[in-house]
Amino acid sequence: MEKMSFPAREAVFCAKCGSRLVHALPPGETRTRAVCPKCGYIHYVNPLPVSGTLPVWKEKILLCRRAIEPRKGFWTLPGGYVESGEATSEGALRETWEEAGFRPELRKLYAVMDVPFGDQIHFFYLADMRSEHSVPGPESAECRLFAEDEIPWNSLAFPTVTYLLKQYFLDRRAGTFPTHHTVLRPECLAAP
Amino acid sequence: MEKMSFPAREAVFCAKCGSRLVHALPPGETRTRAVCPKCGYIHYVNPLPVSGTLPVWKEKILLCRRAIEPRKGFWTLPGGYVESGEATSEGALRETWEEAGFRPELRKLYAVMDVPFGDQIHFFYLADMRSEHSVPGPESAECRLFAEDEIPWNSLAFPTVTYLLKQYFLDRRAGTFPTHHTVLRPECLAAP
Repeated sequence: MEKMSFPAREAVFCAKCGSRLVHALPPGETRTRAVCPKCGYIHYVNPLPVSGTLPVWKEKILLCRRAIEPRKGFWTLPGGYVESGEATSEGALRETWEEAGFRPELRKLYAVMDVPFGDQIHFFYLADMRSEHSVPGPESAECRLFAEDEIPWNSLAFPTVTYLLKQYFLDRRAGTFPTHHTVLRPECLAAP
Repeated sequence: MEKMSFPAREAVFCAKCGSRLVHALPPGETRTRAVCPKCGYIHYVNPLPVSGTLPVWKEKILLCRRAIEPRKGFWTLPGGYVESGEATSEGALRETWEEAGFRPELRKLYAVMDVPFGDQIHFFYLADMRSEHSVPGPESAECRLFAEDEIPWNSLAFPTVTYLLKQYFLDRRAGTFPTHHTVLRPECLAAP
């Protein structure tokens, strides 16, 4: 899914002039920030966007087994951080190519998931595979298609993946795929 | 809406050790990044999340006239950057409080707008005002309720606001408010 090396979540030095930052309340603001006493630069921190696909081939879903930490060996959907200049759909397609080696057709933005305790916002697109062909990229040990009764529920990598797959199979039975929005809280993660 | 002082979009110095960054292709990556030759820190840049509300009171919509640049004097919806640790809904409520002085009831996530040329992703919530009362904050010169035929279409601050208001009045006529998703491209901005 994504690397855990966050971009400068906590900064020590000023990105503009290299001075050591101090914690202070900038004028007109309500939060303490890391600010530069020399050049006035303010180090803002905002949630990071993560985008991926839920790839569908006939009755099956494609999952990737992670080759890297975190959650190495567990199954996930292709996805990762959206890059500067990308739309979330472009990030989803790029990550699917990098991690699973195919270019699906995006059907729609299917889910937006706030993950405030991880400082992330996740976007997942329903995606039609054009063939059953996939090629695991460097971050994937394996890519495989799963029918609903084959999903490795106890070996999924992230709560967002569990939420999304459960929702998908409910929607498939109902025959309708609205755009879902949810906020994942730590206290919600105990129940499977 | 939001301040335009982006967080370290282009960094010159390492946030971790203060050394001067160089442009290089990190191992296993496909993009050139600003990386630290001393400590290995990589300066990632990702789109920033912006969240706000579309506040409704009876048949009217609340807009704020901007007291600050960019687009000072133009009308906008309450919104701004989502802070670290916030869900997008929490950011929308906070910004509405800061810019318009009231706490609406959020009805749903109404729109997700990719703005890749501005390196932002916008979230807007349909929000029911609990009264017609509002108080302009420091970033707002004025807050006012507008009926559909009073909307200052030629004095709106941002294309996202124009898109959202047009969509809202269409949906109100149709009597249904699905979650919308769109990608705003520079070439789409010429047409009103």
